[in-house]
Amino acid sequence: MTESPQVHVIIPFRPVNPKTRLSDVMDQEEREAFARAMLGDVVSVLWEAGCSPSLLSTVPFEFHGVRTYVDTRELNEALNAYLSQQEKPVLIIMSDLPLITPDAVRRLIAGTADVGIVPGRGGGTNVLYVRKPQEYHVDYYGASYCDHVRIAEDAGLSYEVIDSFFMSTDIDEKEDLVEILIHGRGRSRGFLTEIGLTLSLEHGRVGIQRSSHE
Amino acid sequence: MTESPQVHVIIPFRPVNPKTRLSDVMDQEEREAFARAMLGDVVSVLWEAGCSPSLLSTVPFEFHGVRTYVDTRELNEALNAYLSQQEKPVLIIMSDLPLITPDAVRRLIAGTADVGIVPGRGGGTNVLYVRKPQEYHVDYYGASYCDHVRIAEDAGLSYEVIDSFFMSTDIDEKEDLVEILIHGRGRSRGFLTEIGLTLSLEHGRVGIQRSSHE
Repeated sequence: MTESPQVHVIIPFRPVNPKTRLSDVMDQEEREAFARAMLGDVVSVLWEAGCSPSLLSTVPFEFHGVRTYVDTRELNEALNAYLSQQEKPVLIIMSDLPLITPDAVRRLIAGTADVGIVPGRGGGTNVLYVRKPQEYHVDYYGASYCDHVRIAEDAGLSYEVIDSFFMSTDIDEKEDLVEILIHGRGRSRGFLTEIGLTLSLEHGRVGIQRSSHE
Repeated sequence: MTESPQVHVIIPFRPVNPKTRLSDVMDQEEREAFARAMLGDVVSVLWEAGCSPSLLSTVPFEFHGVRTYVDTRELNEALNAYLSQQEKPVLIIMSDLPLITPDAVRRLIAGTADVGIVPGRGGGTNVLYVRKPQEYHVDYYGASYCDHVRIAEDAGLSYEVIDSFFMSTDIDEKEDLVEILIHGRGRSRGFLTEIGLTLSLEHGRVGIQRSSHE
């Protein structure tokens, strides 16, 4: 075992009015606090895995001294501008992956292909490890997993798929919160518990309920 | 690297009228053929990973010479009766996991805890590796993942969670078929293509559409 090199990570983050699909269980202020809790879980795990995280935000944002790049362009444009300036490998990771573990990050970094891809459900891309950033570009939205495979192939780059449930679990909808309550151990789980969200069981299916404030 | 021992696997399988939640995209005959296609993918991968699969069915069923135990009791009762008679480690794997890979199965088998658990989404349990079958019992349905952790703890057995997107992806609903069309390479993917199912993209979300038979 050799010491992992300090891997540069860029985390796109939207501090204002994020996660609108959770609006029926959280108001805007809660969604913003929840997004920061998930980001905190991601950043902690990255530090534990020996990585060096930075944020990419459309507005100035201060988060525990983590370096923040402010770029008002849309996600793909901002990320591709960033990649074109990097000479060392770059890990791009979404901020809504509160279940990621140091082990999963280490498995990703330990790969050898030019591009490591962690699929999300529904054709998404949750994490990309780009070892030759000036030869690659990203294309999020839609079936981005298929696009990211194709972009690697078109550029003559090798790729590998990293098989991780915890990294594939992005939190977008109410049903996704079940996974945090079952598997989470960090700030995100604590936040959900604080606002009164608990698991419910109806007709054998596990769901989410919010206790009233009465 | 040492050669893996031949691990015994038991696969619960329902040949008649399975996967009723797929009824709006497949009729009963198609669902039965699709269930066999998924089973074929699972059995092939297990063989490739050096395992020895058997089936557990409520009715007599012949599948490529794979040994079939017929047990008319409900799932938990039948599996627990089976476990109580085994002296060697037993792998219990569901038949609707067509994306499993030999690598994921090997990671599970390479573990050292008394119980290896692969969670499915929503608190389910997709794969269990039970190294001391006479000291453990299963309890599927509901939040079975939490139950399986608790049963291990109550029995004084160690457990570990195996982190695999491909093993965590069970196919129950129409939306799950997206994962097969994107990531699958086996019979299940071939079957879906044959009956005319393809990916669709609406408002940036990936879905499934079935071409008409006109």
